[in-house]
Parts: sequence; structure tokens; C-alpha cells
Amino acid sequence: MKIVLVPDSFKGTMSSIEVCDIMEASIKKHFANAQVVALPVADGGEGTVDCFLSAMGGSRIVRTVKGPYNEPLESFYGIVDNGQTAVIEMAAASGLPLVGDNKQPDKTTTFGVGELIIDALERGCQRIILGLGGSCTNDLGCGMAAAVGVTFTNKDGASFIPTGGTLCEIAHIDKSKVDPRLSSVSIEAMCDIDNPLFGERGAAYIFSPQKGANPEIVKFLDDGLRAASEVIKQDLHVDVSDMRGAGAAGGMGGGVVAFLGAELKMGIEAVLDTVHFSTIAQDAQLVLTGEGKLDTQSLRGKVVVGVGQRAQKLGVPVVAVVGDAEDVDVTHCGVKAVFTINRRAVPFEIARKTSKQDLSATMDSIMALVKIFAKE
Amino acid sequence: MKIVLVPDSFKGTMSSIEVCDIMEASIKKHFANAQVVALPVADGGEGTVDCFLSAMGGSRIVRTVKGPYNEPLESFYGIVDNGQTAVIEMAAASGLPLVGDNKQPDKTTTFGVGELIIDALERGCQRIILGLGGSCTNDLGCGMAAAVGVTFTNKDGASFIPTGGTLCEIAHIDKSKVDPRLSSVSIEAMCDIDNPLFGERGAAYIFSPQKGANPEIVKFLDDGLRAASEVIKQDLHVDVSDMRGAGAAGGMGGGVVAFLGAELKMGIEAVLDTVHFSTIAQDAQLVLTGEGKLDTQSLRGKVVVGVGQRAQKLGVPVVAVVGDAEDVDVTHCGVKAVFTINRRAVPFEIARKTSKQDLSATMDSIMALVKIFAKE
Repeated sequence: MKIVLVPDSFKGTMSSIEVCDIMEASIKKHFANAQVVALPVADGGEGTVDCFLSAMGGSRIVRTVKGPYNEPLESFYGIVDNGQTAVIEMAAASGLPLVGDNKQPDKTTTFGVGELIIDALERGCQRIILGLGGSCTNDLGCGMAAAVGVTFTNKDGASFIPTGGTLCEIAHIDKSKVDPRLSSVSIEAMCDIDNPLFGERGAAYIFSPQKGANPEIVKFLDDGLRAASEVIKQDLHVDVSDMRGAGAAGGMGGGVVAFLGAELKMGIEAVLDTVHFSTIAQDAQLVLTGEGKLDTQSLRGKVVVGVGQRAQKLGVPVVAVVGDAEDVDVTHCGVKAVFTINRRAVPFEIARKTSKQDLSATMDSIMALVKIFAKE
Repeated sequence: MKIVLVPDSFKGTMSSIEVCDIMEASIKKHFANAQVVALPVADGGEGTVDCFLSAMGGSRIVRTVKGPYNEPLESFYGIVDNGQTAVIEMAAASGLPLVGDNKQPDKTTTFGVGELIIDALERGCQRIILGLGGSCTNDLGCGMAAAVGVTFTNKDGASFIPTGGTLCEIAHIDKSKVDPRLSSVSIEAMCDIDNPLFGERGAAYIFSPQKGANPEIVKFLDDGLRAASEVIKQDLHVDVSDMRGAGAAGGMGGGVVAFLGAELKMGIEAVLDTVHFSTIAQDAQLVLTGEGKLDTQSLRGKVVVGVGQRAQKLGVPVVAVVGDAEDVDVTHCGVKAVFTINRRAVPFEIARKTSKQDLSATMDSIMALVKIFAKE
């Protein structure tokens, strides 16, 4: 019996590594000799490096870089796949927890992320997975870009390193001095949101308030992102003004595309590619996945469905264990059964209305699981 | 694939027949050719006859008897097992819904139940299953006893039919004129509670308030039950004063033992015996059971554990589907896996505390189910 575990975290309650540990313990209780491969899924945010290291082994590299306020910060990233691939989570150099209560998205920088990238280049990595998410910044990745050699100049021709509050001062962008090693490296940014760079669904309006911006600052940041995207279009001939995901991580989504030529990928796709899921799962009898909440959003590339679709191509059945299941049919995405972890009943007035449908859904999952393993 | 369904009702949300229907529909969706045997479990209360008829086939006999206030009432009972066994639910002749708002447990009678018993004797039944529960009465079954020929006399030697309010007037009880056919018939009463006849955990104190008794009446009824049990001891040489379950259904639990020589049985035991569960399940691959709430009480003979223990003797695996699962281990009772039907998450502040344990329990159920059907 070979079982592959590919769960997302259950947001707010269990990390994906914890979910894997619990799943594996239960499997070993029933199948002492089972081969269990645990591939905890990272979402790009805090913990992404640990997930990849847990799934693949590798080295954790510690490096002092500039923190959000240019202070020296002991940061880290991971190297996996025999030194081929670096996994960098931007939260390790410009994460929201790093600034404590001093939240100023107009002043913070992603410069340290660029320093981690340079370090990975120096160690000969050919591929970089860059986890977006959990940032305290709104600098469009300009700090990171500056660290790898992009030059930003203002209208007076003076070079500077833009932050959220000075994006509107960018007059020209020059990539000619970018580290040449970058051109031969594949960079994938993990990005699970599809917000645009600016506007009412953009980085500033949607995400900067939780990073400390008041309404006045929000508008100021949004104006800056909008203005900078015009300069990017003009000088780099890249249009990030209407790109899905450009608004991730304070505009870092747009920045990695514009400055690094990176590809934005759903986190689960980056994980499945990097951990060589298809090779690992092809001879498994079962793949177990899971996430905190299975809902209509799940159909647009979240973990359960992403895993289901890959496994379906391999002909390996997938069972999902989730914290909350809306009435969403994922069987056509290769997910044979969905079990929820809720052991205690909902209040009676709710149960009365939903119990028949709930029993039916639960029975379907049970019988689908039986069908995987039973001879008819 | 042969699957036997033996679920209890999910109290307040689904009858056991409805649970069976939903289970069967799901099974047939996944295993079109499966042989499904549905044995919905009755608890002795309203719906007991329909459960047995659904499980076994048979006839529904309609008979006009005396209702709770001696009014003519169209009542019914079932005959199953090729005419051998009558199934009578006392709620059909003296059930609480029959009296509407006119709840007077001191005045209502179980006489009609006795009339149904006589009818079953006349049709040649050799075995009577008598479902206790859901009654509007507190007459210790004296009405029923009178209908089958037991004579109650007061201190003046006048015969009368006691109700809850006149139990204390019983001076003598005489069984000499009881229908002689009763002595050759096996009578089993389904009784899932263990309350004694009287006292603070007795029929009056615990159950008569919901039948309309105010505190004064409760005490009066309790005194009556206590006094009558003394006469029973003296004249019938049966001691029901300390008998578990004697307090069921307004003292009917004690009455069927004292007046009919019946055996009090857990409902699930009566059902499993009557429907010939062991014969039906012995060649099944799976038994599915369930109940609204799996808790520590479940270990004392409720449906899930009752089914598990019988199936364990046959070597047939049992999986339970429940509405609410406390952290109770029933694996040693033959129940391999317990799934809950709750698809939606509990509030976050609860989930945070229980999610790891819940995930572990759910994984255990999944892997136990896999183990039933998988080759290691």
C-alpha cells in the first residue's frame, strides 16, 4: 500500500506539515507497512520553505539581508532538488510579522528578497520558486528589483530605491545592469490570488489596510502603483496594468513579471511540479489531500482540485479531508470522496434542514471510498 | 456486494426508514448491482410498527379500540414473520399526540393497548413485540391489564380500571381471569430507558411533567405507583419496585412484567432478534448502522453498539454514520469506523481547539474503511 499525502494547511488551525503528520500516524496505525509519502503543500506565504524542505529534503540557507526598514535581518531560504532549485518565501525578508506594530506599507522594502535571490544565484541554483504572500510591503517589488540590479531614477535623473510611498517618483527604469545570471534561471512565483495591480480590487485597496494603511495612504499607494505601471510599460515594454495576480504581495506579483521575467503560478501547481508529484504518485494506491474549506473557489485551482486533476491523469484515486465542505461537486476533478473532520453536530435548527443532504453526501463519500478498494 | 443497513433514527431530523432510503440510494449509485437489505430500527415509540413492516414485510392490522380517554379510536398494529409475531406500539392506542393539549396523565388509560394484544391473540400470534414509549399515560399498564382480564378491586371489593390518579385505590389484584392464551405467548417489551417505577428517577418525576402533570400531580402519581407496586408484590409476588425500566411509558415497563410476564428488552435487541439479523448479515460484506448521537450512552446498548456487537460475532465489519460523535471508542464493539454527516465547519474558536483530534478521528475512520476492503 502506497499512499501519497498532499494536503494544504487548514488555515488558522493546522499547518500542512501538521496535517501530514496526523494523516501518516493514522495510516500507520491501520497499515503498519504502508509506504507513505508526505508532500505538505506550501501556499507561498510563511512556512513555504519548510514545506518544501519537509517534502523533498534539502538545505536551509541562513543569510543576513536588509529587512523591511533596511535593518540587518537574519533571513533564510531553502535549496532542494540536489541544489538545482531555490525556494524563497518573501515573508522571510519582508513579512508582516517582521515589523510588529510598526506597519508602514509606504516605507517598507522588498530589497532583502532580492538579496536572497542573488545568494541563490551565487550557489548555482538554476530554478527559483518565489513564494508571494504575507508581506508588509507595497513597493511593487522595486526593492527586490534594485537588489538584483534594476535601476530606478527620478525626474532629475537621480537613482533611488522606490518604496510604496515613492513609486510615483519613478521616471525611468533600466534593466541593463541586472545580474546576468538571472537570464538563464527559471523563476516561478507562487501566487494564489488574482487581484490586479491597482484599482478597487488592487493591491493597495484590498491588502494595504491590513498592512497599516489608512484611507489616505491607500489612495496614495494605489496612485503610485498605477503611475509605476505606466513607466514599466514605457521602459520595459511589459504591461502589468491588467494582469491577474499582479496585485499579490503589495504588487510583487507584477514586479516579478516585469523585473525578473518570472511566471506567476498557482501555488499548488508550483508545488506539484517541484516535488515531482506525478513521478511519486504514479504507483500509489491512494492520494490524500485536504484543505480548510472546500468551496466554489476550490474549483479555480486551489489545492484539492489541483491535486485531483493531476492524479486523475495518472489514474490514481484522490480522497479529500476538509474542515468545511460546501455543496460543491469535485468528482469530475478526480476527487472521489470528500470527508469533513467535523465530529460534533451543528445546532439542531440547522441540522434539521441539512441532515438528509449531509447524510447523502457522507454516504456518497463512504461508498466511493469502498468502491476504490472493493471488488464489485 | 451485499450490504445490510441497520440504522436508528436521527432523532428530530430523520426516521430510520428515511436513513435507510438515503443510504440505499447512495449505495446503488456506486454499486448498481449491490444487494442491499434495509432493516430500519424501531425504538418502541411512534413508527415502531412501520419499521418492522418495512424491514420484514407483513400486514398492518387496523382495529378500533378505546383511546386514552376511553373514546373509540382507530388504532393499528403489525403482523410479521408469517403471522407468528405481532408488533404493537403502545403509542398507537395511548400515545401523547392522541390527546392533543388535553394532557392529564392521571386520567388516561392504556386499555386500548390491551385490546390490541387480545386481537393479536385472536389472530394466532405466538409472539408479541410491545413497543413502549411516547405514551400519555401513567397508569402502570393497569388499563392494558384490565383489557386482558386482570381484575383490580378497591378496599370495598368493587372492581375498577385504575388510571394514574386511582392507582392508590388498588387494594387487590387478581390474575385468575386473564386470557389463558397469554400464557403460551412470548411477550417482549422494547424499552430503552432504565428508570425505576417510582422515586426521583421514576416514571412520574421524570416523565409525567411532559405529559401535563404539575408538581402536585407528579407527587400524587408517584405515590400511586409506589402504592400499586406494594399490592403487586403482595398479590402477584412480583417485585417491580426496584426494577430497571419499570418506569418506562408511565409505569408500563413494570406493568408488562407484573401483569403479562413480559421480558423487558433493549429495542435494538428486540429488533435484531425479530428481523433475524444474524441470518441476514452473515454473508454481508458490510453492515452500515447509525444514530443521531454517538456518546457514552451508546456503549450501554444503543443501536450502533448493539449492531456492532452482533456483527462482530459474525465477523462482518460495521461502519457507523452518525449526526454527532463524541470522543467514544466503539472499535472494540465491532464498529470499525464512525463517520459524521456534518459537512460544515464548527465556529473557528471551537475548531481551533479540536481540529487535530477531529482530523485524527476522521483519518482513522477512513483508513479503517480502506482496511476492510483493501489488500495490504
